[in-house]
Amino acid sequence: MASILSASNKSMRSDGNTYVGKRFVHVKNPYLDSMDEDILYHLDLGTKTHDLPAMFGDVKFVCVGGSPKRMKAFALFMQKELRLEESREDIKDICAGTDRYCMYKIGPVLSISHGMGIPSISIMLHELIKLLHHAQCCDVTIIRIGTSGGIGITPGSVVITDTAVDSFFKPRFEQIILDNIVTRSTELDKALAEELFNYSKEIPNFPSLIGHTMCTYDFYEGQGRLDGALCSFSREKKVDYLKRAYKAGIRNIEMESTVFAAMCRLCGLKAAVVCVTLLDRLECDQINLPRDVLEEFQQRPQLLISRFIKKRLGLHDQRS
Amino acid sequence: MASILSASNKSMRSDGNTYVGKRFVHVKNPYLDSMDEDILYHLDLGTKTHDLPAMFGDVKFVCVGGSPKRMKAFALFMQKELRLEESREDIKDICAGTDRYCMYKIGPVLSISHGMGIPSISIMLHELIKLLHHAQCCDVTIIRIGTSGGIGITPGSVVITDTAVDSFFKPRFEQIILDNIVTRSTELDKALAEELFNYSKEIPNFPSLIGHTMCTYDFYEGQGRLDGALCSFSREKKVDYLKRAYKAGIRNIEMESTVFAAMCRLCGLKAAVVCVTLLDRLECDQINLPRDVLEEFQQRPQLLISRFIKKRLGLHDQRS
Repeated sequence: MASILSASNKSMRSDGNTYVGKRFVHVKNPYLDSMDEDILYHLDLGTKTHDLPAMFGDVKFVCVGGSPKRMKAFALFMQKELRLEESREDIKDICAGTDRYCMYKIGPVLSISHGMGIPSISIMLHELIKLLHHAQCCDVTIIRIGTSGGIGITPGSVVITDTAVDSFFKPRFEQIILDNIVTRSTELDKALAEELFNYSKEIPNFPSLIGHTMCTYDFYEGQGRLDGALCSFSREKKVDYLKRAYKAGIRNIEMESTVFAAMCRLCGLKAAVVCVTLLDRLECDQINLPRDVLEEFQQRPQLLISRFIKKRLGLHDQRS
Repeated sequence: MASILSASNKSMRSDGNTYVGKRFVHVKNPYLDSMDEDILYHLDLGTKTHDLPAMFGDVKFVCVGGSPKRMKAFALFMQKELRLEESREDIKDICAGTDRYCMYKIGPVLSISHGMGIPSISIMLHELIKLLHHAQCCDVTIIRIGTSGGIGITPGSVVITDTAVDSFFKPRFEQIILDNIVTRSTELDKALAEELFNYSKEIPNFPSLIGHTMCTYDFYEGQGRLDGALCSFSREKKVDYLKRAYKAGIRNIEMESTVFAAMCRLCGLKAAVVCVTLLDRLECDQINLPRDVLEEFQQRPQLLISRFIKKRLGLHDQRS
């Protein structure tokens, strides 16, 4: 079973490096095209109820993040940045029929929320990837813009992930399929990470770096916090763990990057993870910055991705 | 490390059976009480900014569910059922400052959303349990009311969980703490499950049963769906897996019950899981019922829990 996906993964890797022509989104499911209808339940969309190619065929950039409010703010920001305000298009939540996720479309940019944690983003990604496939989208870049805890770096720093690693510092995502565990690679697109890092250097007062990102299944015990409802380890054990993570090249911790990297890689989507850090976990566990500082920090990944999209669209001379 | 929690777990177990007097919520974290302030970041509440005992001290029933809209609907329903409408209290989202979760309080009932998946509910539970502890709540019952996929039972059936099991049909939750894996029991309160089952029999046209509930980390590959963006197994393998699950006593599949059972058990909260099934996974993978049928199904767990709360409060003669 696992070998099917691993094999296609290898061929995609060389695709990625030698790419010419249109790169479509791959679904890796032999059953899908024989289905009479595909209901994307958690997005409240479907192949019979919606004309997906007409609605989404021109999408080139997908930006995802945990918080619905933040992804709406990003959509409004992109509308301004791409000078699409004059179209007086209302920013409407395309998934308004469900409260599981929200989705906004601004020209070629899709902004979607994914909730918190691997299972939540994984449901969204399955349905998003099918959506891009049904809509016959090509050459799509997908970027997660999120928040995270930093390790040994100043709060407010933006970490561009080269590789997502698990709690054991390994670059892998363990997917349970039926009752088997299948290990998938979590490598991200290195060229895209470099490109984003270079653009970040053009923005004044924008601390940024490339590093490994650790993805955990929980915020408290799994990230070594001493302030959860449960805590069975000492402060020393916590600090030892975080210092070992730092030595392994990890610069921030969040809760979605491994499955995001693994799924996008398998489906031929060029992917990046760009997260701002809200605290330095070597210093503290609680997020206690004033709200306005937190707000400004959370805009940093948006600022970088906006610059990236405008460069890609050849709009960089107008406002950058 | 793990032994600390296992040991207290055992003593709690006998507590649970021989309980007399007030049963407080236990946090199992020696660091917590020495903290000057505790910011419950994802609930937008804190010990310095809010008078938690005044706000929450009288809470006796906590109901949690994935969808924010559904948990608001449940709060409105309970307001009616408990005849608290005349107080003209606005149903306000107590966590309005954040979009991670929503929370409503109706007299002794707290209704909170938890998003989808183990990591998402786990963050909420850590902060909820600390909230109940800071507010000095006692004798609290917590119930997850959710949706699920059934196995071999009619859609619309309500499953009251006796034991939550993982993808390997084991009654355990594997919690990663730093880089160790700690196994926790997922047994739920049997007496509470029986009580709920008995009440369910009093409601006309209310198909219900007690069974095991399987909790997975994802909705597609992890639950043997043939309609995800990725699918590497055959229809036969899927059916074989689900039939083995049925033989093991599993009657429904969802994505939060193991960590919910494990954490509530460790913290001395009497807990139950009551989920309606939206489809029979032996028959299909897609949720394609008309919206009004889905709505009615989703009200079933609410109906049962409302009856339970009214009985506990001695209000069962008024409206039941």
